[in-house]
Amino acid sequence: MSTVTSQRHDDLIGASVEDVETPALLVDLDVMEANIRRWQAAVDATSVAFRPHIKTHKAPAVAAQQLAAGAVGLAVAKVAEAEVFAAVGCRDLVVAYPVVGASKWARLAALARTCTLTVNVGSEISARGLSAAAVAAGSVIRVHLDIDTGLHRCGVLPEDAEALGRLVLGLPGLELDGVTTFRTVIFPGAAGRSPEDLGRDEGELMVGLAERLRAAGLPIRTVAVGSTPTALAAATVPGVTEVRAGTYVFGDALMAAWGAVAQEEIALSILCTVVSRPTPERATIDGGSKTFAGDIAPGMVAGLAGYGRLVGADAHIDGMTEEHGLVRLGPGAAPKIGERLRFVPNHVCTAVNLADELIGVRDGRVATIWPILARGKRT
Amino acid sequence: MSTVTSQRHDDLIGASVEDVETPALLVDLDVMEANIRRWQAAVDATSVAFRPHIKTHKAPAVAAQQLAAGAVGLAVAKVAEAEVFAAVGCRDLVVAYPVVGASKWARLAALARTCTLTVNVGSEISARGLSAAAVAAGSVIRVHLDIDTGLHRCGVLPEDAEALGRLVLGLPGLELDGVTTFRTVIFPGAAGRSPEDLGRDEGELMVGLAERLRAAGLPIRTVAVGSTPTALAAATVPGVTEVRAGTYVFGDALMAAWGAVAQEEIALSILCTVVSRPTPERATIDGGSKTFAGDIAPGMVAGLAGYGRLVGADAHIDGMTEEHGLVRLGPGAAPKIGERLRFVPNHVCTAVNLADELIGVRDGRVATIWPILARGKRT
Repeated sequence: MSTVTSQRHDDLIGASVEDVETPALLVDLDVMEANIRRWQAAVDATSVAFRPHIKTHKAPAVAAQQLAAGAVGLAVAKVAEAEVFAAVGCRDLVVAYPVVGASKWARLAALARTCTLTVNVGSEISARGLSAAAVAAGSVIRVHLDIDTGLHRCGVLPEDAEALGRLVLGLPGLELDGVTTFRTVIFPGAAGRSPEDLGRDEGELMVGLAERLRAAGLPIRTVAVGSTPTALAAATVPGVTEVRAGTYVFGDALMAAWGAVAQEEIALSILCTVVSRPTPERATIDGGSKTFAGDIAPGMVAGLAGYGRLVGADAHIDGMTEEHGLVRLGPGAAPKIGERLRFVPNHVCTAVNLADELIGVRDGRVATIWPILARGKRT
Repeated sequence: MSTVTSQRHDDLIGASVEDVETPALLVDLDVMEANIRRWQAAVDATSVAFRPHIKTHKAPAVAAQQLAAGAVGLAVAKVAEAEVFAAVGCRDLVVAYPVVGASKWARLAALARTCTLTVNVGSEISARGLSAAAVAAGSVIRVHLDIDTGLHRCGVLPEDAEALGRLVLGLPGLELDGVTTFRTVIFPGAAGRSPEDLGRDEGELMVGLAERLRAAGLPIRTVAVGSTPTALAAATVPGVTEVRAGTYVFGDALMAAWGAVAQEEIALSILCTVVSRPTPERATIDGGSKTFAGDIAPGMVAGLAGYGRLVGADAHIDGMTEEHGLVRLGPGAAPKIGERLRFVPNHVCTAVNLADELIGVRDGRVATIWPILARGKRT
């Protein structure tokens, strides 16, 4: 084929950001590195361990920085994500998802031969399936009991934790290690409670459960809680041993609306080009729902206008089709066709999952390009 | 690495659908092939050409069937998509997007040396940029004037088409060929007008414009209109020369809600596994916003309940996080953990863009696996 194709990486390193084709995910490396340092230091100031969730970056290069800063290991959702991060050398992984299916249990059991692998378990079928797979593979899988503390998404209710724990304790190939929950109630927010209040609630609830389970004779070592809005407050609760967070590394408009990150802590923005100016109040950009995702839509969360906000001016994306973002321009914003604009997405995790690479930027130049190796890994 | 990894393709061909890991995109090959045949025959019964848009499948294997059935060529959105389909041998491509940016114009100009390439142009900057790139590359790019007929997304207003046409006519490296529009007004629908009414409106509007431009001396050969809801009606309008559609090939819940496809014409469903049953009314499945997308959200379109509907029972996905679909179960639906369910997504194009492959199924067995080669190609 004799065509010019997409930009080559070696041509871009050192280039001005102005030379990057759009749409592109730009990571401000100074801001990201500060986020990693600040969070690790905040957790280190308590007595608990910090385990970042890779769902936000899906990139081994970013995980390496989190581990180098002092993270105890990584959390992933799906088995295929665990395989990506084990393959690049991560030795301590938690699969924070209720894995169901014989072939997936077998993949986990194989993985447990190569690293310390912990799996959240929230049902008898998962416990028995994992056990059988571990026995067949000759491996041991650590288990955290997944507790449903109000989100009603997965896990067992607190009153059912003891029975599940006894089952796990008696099954070969499994090692009962702890309890965990994901509690952030996304829609609607908990009225009148700050993220810090919710973090302390979550920690206290799970520490209390762990104590009851220990009193009943179950060996609960780990009490793992947290998310970006709640983890730092949860880490201050005596008895919590590990906190988790993902979005903190890049931040997004949703976390800013919730007060969980400051605007200046947002490290990732999406560079787009204006391709049309159909009306005085509208600019059309070359990123739509294939770039920004649409899972956090306008009206879902107070304080979020549109699907993404323009950096440095009064404008936001108020409509999208697949390749078109329809930007509503505020007074004074009048970008020309060809002008390049940066937007903060509502939800950075799903936006990253739509891309193949992260462009690391320092001082206005491309410093690095990271492949998003775990993009789309959902089995 | 000594781990078991994701399922291998050669193990899956011929296997039962029950052996496919979830989430997975299943294509009912009989239904898809019937869609391709039926649409081509319907357009062939008029005097116009049919050009499928690849945005729905993004897979050369499906495009090959559309071309074999008689399609005149393919429509794509982005330059990177054109590069994928040119590389696998498509010789007639329309880039139906207002391309802006010097490196992209250069890529198009290079591509135009290898195939018949038409680009929709809706601004002076695009016309001049494409012209300069074509001259530099020694190629000729055909141009369709992109007309904004009410969506206000891109293109020029009808009253500005003549001036843009004259500009294109005078620029070297460009060949003015026709006019085009994308008119489907998605939110809200056009009150009181059926998709067929809208298709005829669209055709008549554009034929009228083409006649005015010809009367003014511009050589307008092609009048290209249409989308899945409107294309077959538009094809019956005298003077229309080409219609386009994408979603018809698979169908989805949105097209069914609009009456543009029948339920039995929906060829693609998403197979998921129940991973939790947190309440009697809810099942949690292993596909969420990373599987179904969320760009067509509940409440956006009349007749659409939730983010996807369960095939064969009264249930739909009424909430999603990244890896979890929260299914609201109707009376009589009580799936167990481990049960596998199929769902029809609201918007098939964005769901396909989240996957790496399409699993072609016939008689309950995996007949083929097609890579979605143009997934994520958005530059």
